[in-house]
Amino acid sequence: MSFNKKIKNECLKKNNRLCIGLDVDNEKLTNPSLDYMEGFIKDIIDATNDICPVYKINFAFYERHGSKGFSILENIQKYIDNKAITIADAKRGDIGNSSKYYADAVFNHLNFDSITVAPYMGIDSINPFINYSEKKGVFILALTSNKGSENFQKLLIQNKELYKYVIDLSNQANINNNVGMVIGATNTSYLDDIEKKSSALPWLMPGIGFQGGDLKSSIEIGERNFLSLINVSRGIIYNKKGTINDIRDASNDYTKKIREYL
Amino acid sequence: MSFNKKIKNECLKKNNRLCIGLDVDNEKLTNPSLDYMEGFIKDIIDATNDICPVYKINFAFYERHGSKGFSILENIQKYIDNKAITIADAKRGDIGNSSKYYADAVFNHLNFDSITVAPYMGIDSINPFINYSEKKGVFILALTSNKGSENFQKLLIQNKELYKYVIDLSNQANINNNVGMVIGATNTSYLDDIEKKSSALPWLMPGIGFQGGDLKSSIEIGERNFLSLINVSRGIIYNKKGTINDIRDASNDYTKKIREYL
Repeated sequence: MSFNKKIKNECLKKNNRLCIGLDVDNEKLTNPSLDYMEGFIKDIIDATNDICPVYKINFAFYERHGSKGFSILENIQKYIDNKAITIADAKRGDIGNSSKYYADAVFNHLNFDSITVAPYMGIDSINPFINYSEKKGVFILALTSNKGSENFQKLLIQNKELYKYVIDLSNQANINNNVGMVIGATNTSYLDDIEKKSSALPWLMPGIGFQGGDLKSSIEIGERNFLSLINVSRGIIYNKKGTINDIRDASNDYTKKIREYL
Repeated sequence: MSFNKKIKNECLKKNNRLCIGLDVDNEKLTNPSLDYMEGFIKDIIDATNDICPVYKINFAFYERHGSKGFSILENIQKYIDNKAITIADAKRGDIGNSSKYYADAVFNHLNFDSITVAPYMGIDSINPFINYSEKKGVFILALTSNKGSENFQKLLIQNKELYKYVIDLSNQANINNNVGMVIGATNTSYLDDIEKKSSALPWLMPGIGFQGGDLKSSIEIGERNFLSLINVSRGIIYNKKGTINDIRDASNDYTKKIREYL
């Protein structure tokens, strides 16, 4: 089954579009040891995987701990296994033979279901990820949630912003039904326009919660397109005192709101 | 001392601009074990560091081996230590708090001297690397050596290509004299134009050798600007039979040619 079908099925099965970002900062835990951090992440997964269809793992939070952090990545993916879909939020991209090895790292060695990739180097830097397998998904950065999206992504090229060229390329690249896009939920006023350009692709939408994105329009417009994956990281992990119960509560709250808008 | 001064000093001291890319594929070695791979890379460093001022380590070749590959990265950087300048060719870039952790991973945990970063997400995704320390360098992808550079980088925005907007941003960001750019040596006909736009920044120039870039113009134009770092990976690592002697010979040959054009 293609990745896009698989992730949609998982979302329909759990009647949810929540993507919990497992961006755990060990220094903010009651015990900063890496063993404790790994256990804590597994506890989050245990407490939420019955309702959460997708987990996004931001590699920056793990790589800062070097090879030990990388081995936590290995263990977390194994632990999630088939309980939910995983996104390696690694934002990779390089010339062809290097991208091939990044794909190997994330899809083969780590066995993640999907990855985020940066488009600046063009289609030959993305194709090795897309062509790896139709079962593995590739979320291309199109319009991101941060302020710096104005520097290049929103530049006008013959009355069309750069990010729309990235959308065109994403549409064209989706031959195996395994391409998605990162669309920052903070770009509320752009979503209708994006929906017109985007073919039926899953949108990974960060920016809800801490960054101030609008949940209602993100779901309504993303779903009209194909599938909206609402990423929440800090808004869940740091709810109240950040205990597993607090995290479970926040996941339930977001799930309730998401279901209202579905 | 700022990174740009430090790397220029190292190049002047060794009278060379060669940057050897340690892109070692374990499957192409006589023994594919990761221990052998690590020993082989250390042998390359031993055989070349008297003439080679800069080593570039492409993370894709290490991450594909997971946590074990990451621990080789840790060991290689420790091994090179102060014998030469190191570039973490990782092409990272994310929203601010994530980029901060990537900077932490590469500059603090791994202790590399510099990194390559992707500009698509804008200046706030790059600043955490630049602001980490003036001693740590940041090479921003401007115009890359691959065919995909045509997809976005060469798009015209009001008669100015996108990559020139990236050059403008790189110039502006170079407040602490630690910003450089990646300029693919395959773009021979663009180099004069780039030189006019670029302030005095080191250019990391991949694309010589296997990819067919022009060595003479890369050195002459890059040096007129400030500093050209001529990256050769496959052209050195896979010279003849790929023995340490063959690698030493190729490094000597490139060094000779580089010195002719300096």
